[in-house]
Amino acid sequence: MSSMSTTTQDSTTSVAAATASAAAAAAELADAPLERRAAMLRGIADAIDHAGPELVPIAASETGIAADRLTGEVARTTGQLRLFADVVEEGSFLEATIDHAVAGATPPRPDLRRLLVPVGPVAIYAASNFPFAFSIAGGDTASALAAGAPVVVKAHPGHPETSARTAAVVSDAIASQGLPAGTFAVVDGFDAGTELVQDPRIRAAAFTGSTRGGRALYDLAAQRPDPIPFYGELGSVNPVVITSAALDARADQLADGLVTSFTTSAGQLCTKPGVVFVPSGSDFAARVGRRVPSTVTRLLTPSIADTFHSRLTDLAALDGVEVVAGSDAAGGDAAPVVLSATTRAIAEHPELLDETFGPTTLLVHYESLDDLTAILLSIGGALSGTFHGAEGEEGHPVVAALREIAGRVLFDGWPTGVAVTWGQQHGGPWPSSTSLHTSVGASATRRFLRPLAFQSAPEAALPKALVESNPLAIPRRVDGILVLP
Amino acid sequence: MSSMSTTTQDSTTSVAAATASAAAAAAELADAPLERRAAMLRGIADAIDHAGPELVPIAASETGIAADRLTGEVARTTGQLRLFADVVEEGSFLEATIDHAVAGATPPRPDLRRLLVPVGPVAIYAASNFPFAFSIAGGDTASALAAGAPVVVKAHPGHPETSARTAAVVSDAIASQGLPAGTFAVVDGFDAGTELVQDPRIRAAAFTGSTRGGRALYDLAAQRPDPIPFYGELGSVNPVVITSAALDARADQLADGLVTSFTTSAGQLCTKPGVVFVPSGSDFAARVGRRVPSTVTRLLTPSIADTFHSRLTDLAALDGVEVVAGSDAAGGDAAPVVLSATTRAIAEHPELLDETFGPTTLLVHYESLDDLTAILLSIGGALSGTFHGAEGEEGHPVVAALREIAGRVLFDGWPTGVAVTWGQQHGGPWPSSTSLHTSVGASATRRFLRPLAFQSAPEAALPKALVESNPLAIPRRVDGILVLP
Repeated sequence: MSSMSTTTQDSTTSVAAATASAAAAAAELADAPLERRAAMLRGIADAIDHAGPELVPIAASETGIAADRLTGEVARTTGQLRLFADVVEEGSFLEATIDHAVAGATPPRPDLRRLLVPVGPVAIYAASNFPFAFSIAGGDTASALAAGAPVVVKAHPGHPETSARTAAVVSDAIASQGLPAGTFAVVDGFDAGTELVQDPRIRAAAFTGSTRGGRALYDLAAQRPDPIPFYGELGSVNPVVITSAALDARADQLADGLVTSFTTSAGQLCTKPGVVFVPSGSDFAARVGRRVPSTVTRLLTPSIADTFHSRLTDLAALDGVEVVAGSDAAGGDAAPVVLSATTRAIAEHPELLDETFGPTTLLVHYESLDDLTAILLSIGGALSGTFHGAEGEEGHPVVAALREIAGRVLFDGWPTGVAVTWGQQHGGPWPSSTSLHTSVGASATRRFLRPLAFQSAPEAALPKALVESNPLAIPRRVDGILVLP
Repeated sequence: MSSMSTTTQDSTTSVAAATASAAAAAAELADAPLERRAAMLRGIADAIDHAGPELVPIAASETGIAADRLTGEVARTTGQLRLFADVVEEGSFLEATIDHAVAGATPPRPDLRRLLVPVGPVAIYAASNFPFAFSIAGGDTASALAAGAPVVVKAHPGHPETSARTAAVVSDAIASQGLPAGTFAVVDGFDAGTELVQDPRIRAAAFTGSTRGGRALYDLAAQRPDPIPFYGELGSVNPVVITSAALDARADQLADGLVTSFTTSAGQLCTKPGVVFVPSGSDFAARVGRRVPSTVTRLLTPSIADTFHSRLTDLAALDGVEVVAGSDAAGGDAAPVVLSATTRAIAEHPELLDETFGPTTLLVHYESLDDLTAILLSIGGALSGTFHGAEGEEGHPVVAALREIAGRVLFDGWPTGVAVTWGQQHGGPWPSSTSLHTSVGASATRRFLRPLAFQSAPEAALPKALVESNPLAIPRRVDGILVLP
C-alpha cells in the first residue's frame, strides 16, 4: 500500500490547518446520507483490518504490548467501527421526534420536529494504553465520525509511528469513499494538544488518560470564551468487594481471577481492579500472594514507569501498608506487586485510593460493613465496581454503594475487558470521568451531537429524518408515541 | 390552605441544610417506583393549579407582569409538570438496554444491561421573567424531579413572595405523596447561589438568565475539585431573516407579527426577536415604525431597567444606527424602541449583536447574501433563528446558516412562544446556552441522569427496568433492536 510509506511528517499537520479543514468539511459530512457515513466507517474498518499485520509489529515495538493482544485490539477497533456503522443505519441515535401542530391547543401549537445534528469539528486525545482501540481510529474517533462530526486527533507520543501509519490508512479510506479530506486529521505534540482544545473551530473534545492530564485540558476547555464540552475518561481504582461467604465458596477461584485481571496488559488498563476489599482475618492475601507471577514487563512509556515506581515506593512505606507479594523492578520495567492495608491506613492516607497505573493492586481488610461502605463512598467515582458475593447476597447493602459511585457494576466477574455493545457504559462519576456519557459502546455517539428543532418547516426544508413519510425508515417519536419503522 | 401562610423565612433554608437533606433523600427518591414519581409530579401540578388564583396577584404585583399572562403561565407550568409525569410513565427516558451474553464471541461477551439513573441532588437557578414556568416549580425543577433527582432551587430575588408561596405548595404536595422532605428545598440570596453550585453534594446545576450571570456560575461549577455539569440557558438575539420576496408578498403582516413578538411581555422573553435582517432599500422599517405602540410598561427589576436604558442610549449613539420608532421611558419603565443599522455599523460595533433584554429590536439592512450570512455566523449561537421567505425559497442558503447557529429554526412565524412538547428544543450553541441539551420539553430530563450498566447481574440485583420480563412495560433496546412493550 502506497499510503503505508507516508512519513510522520506528512500525516500530521498544524492545528490551525487541521481545524480549518475540519470546519470546511463539517457541512458536507453532516449532510451526507447516513448510508455514506456507515460506508465510511466500514471502509475504515476494512482498511485497518487489511493493514493490521503491518501495524501490529510497529505498535508492539513502540509500546511493549504483546503482539497477540494487539492483534485482538485491531479486531476490537474494527468491530467498534462496524458497530457504529450499524448505529448510524439503525437511526435511533438521531432521536427524531415529530409533534404535529395542534391548532385547538391554548396557545395553538405549531408543528415541531427535532433531531440531533453533529456538533461540528471535535478534538480527540489518543490514549497510551490502546494504540488502536483508543487511539487514532479508536472508539472516540469512530463515535464522532458516526455522529457526522469531523475529527482532529491529537496523537499519543507513546506510539508515533503506529499513529502516523494508522492515520494514513484512515485518510485513504475516507478519500476512497469520496468524503472530504477535512473529515479527519492528526496533530502531534504537547503544544498542539493544548492549542487544539482552545481552537475556536473545535466544538467538543474527548480524552482518555490520567486525571491530571485530563483535568488540565478540561480547565482549558472550560476557560474558553465559548466553553465546550470536554469528555474526559480519567483515572479509576475500580473497587472490588469480596464477602466472607464468597471466600468460603471459592477463595482460590477468586484469587486466580484477581491475579489475572490486575496483571493483564501489565495492569495498564483503565478498568484494572486497583483496590480489593476482603474481610479482615481471611487468608485471601496469602492465596493471592502465592499466585503472583514474577514476570517483568516493559511499561508503555518511561513516564508511566517512573510514576509506577515512585508511587509504589511511597505507598509501601506508609504505616499500615504491607507488601503481600512481588518486588518492584527498575527502569522502564515492572513486575506485579500486591499491597495490603488496614481500613485505618486508608483513613489516614487517602492517597491509597488514587489510581496506580501498572501491575499492582491493593487488598484492604475491612472490619465492618459500615467501614467498608464509608470507604467506598469516599472514592467518589469509578469506571467500575465489582461485587463478589455468594448466592442470596444479591441484595447486599454494599451493592448500593457500588451503584452510587460506579458507571458499571459487575457481579462475579472482573472489570478488565470492556465489551463494545449497545448497552456498555464506560464512564462514571468524577474522578473517573467528566461526563454523563459513555466513551465505549453505541451511545458514545451522543457526546458529539446537539439537538436542533424545526418549527412549521415546509417539507423541502426538513432533513430526511424528519420528513413525514419517514424515508430513512428509522424509529421516531410521533406525537409522543415511539414508532418503529 | 395552611401552607399559604408560611413566611419567606420558613420556606427557605441554609444551603448546607438543604443539600444535606437532598443527599439524604436521593436514594429513596431514585428507588421510588416510576408511578410514584409521576404521581408526585401530577400532585404538584394539581396543587399549583389550586393555588393559582392566590399566587397570580402576588406575582403580578412583584413582577409587573399582567395577570392574564401569569394565569396562562400557571397553566403552562402545571402542563409542564404533567408532561414530565407522562415522560416518566412512558419510560423511554431510562434508555433501558439489554445485551444478552454471547458465550461464543471472541472474547466471550457477558450479559450487559444499562439504564439512566438520577445524577443526585441538583441546583436550579430560577429566572426573573417566568415567575412560575422557569422558577420554583418550573421546567428545570419538573425535569429534575422527573429524573428522580432531589432539587434545591435558588429563588430569584425579583419575586420573593411568589417563590416562598409556591415553595410551600410544592413541599406540601411532595409530603402528601409520602416522598421525603429532602426531595425539594429553596434557598435565597446571592451568596446562597454561589455557595450552592460549589456544594459538594450538588451533582448538576441548571440556570436560566443572563450570559454574564450564567458564565459566573458556570465558572464556579467548572472550577470545583469535582467539576459538575452546568446547564445554562443564557442570552440570545434570536435572529430573524426576511427576504425581498417575503416582503413583496406580506410586508404588513410581517410588520404586525414582529411588533407583537418583540413587545410581548415587554420584550423580556429569552426568545424575543432581537435582530431582524431586512433587504436594504425596503420600506419595512417605516411599516414597523408606524405600528410601534407607545405603551409604557414596568420592567421586571430595577437592574433590568437600568441595563435596558443604558444599552439603548449607547447603541442609539453609534454611527450608522438610527432610531426608527419609540423613545425610551425612564426609571423602572420602558416603552418599545426600534433601532436600525447598516451591516457596516454591525461590523464596526459587534456589540449591536448582543442581547438587549426588554422591548426593543434592531433592524439590520443587508446588501448581499454574503454579508448577511457572515453576520449570522458571527452571532455564534442563538436559541432560535427565524426565516421569512416566499414560496420556493425553502432551500434558501441563509437557512443553512440559521441551522448552524440556532437550536430551533422557525419558518414563517415568530420565536416567542415555546411550546412544551416532546420535540421542543430550547438551547443552542454558545452564548445562547452551555449545553447540548434542551431546558424545555421532554428530553430536558436527560440533563439530570447518568448511565449505569450492570454486568452479569442476577435478576434480584437488577432495577425493574432491566429485569428480563420487562415488568415496567417500557420500550427497551434488546440485543441492538428497539422493542416496544
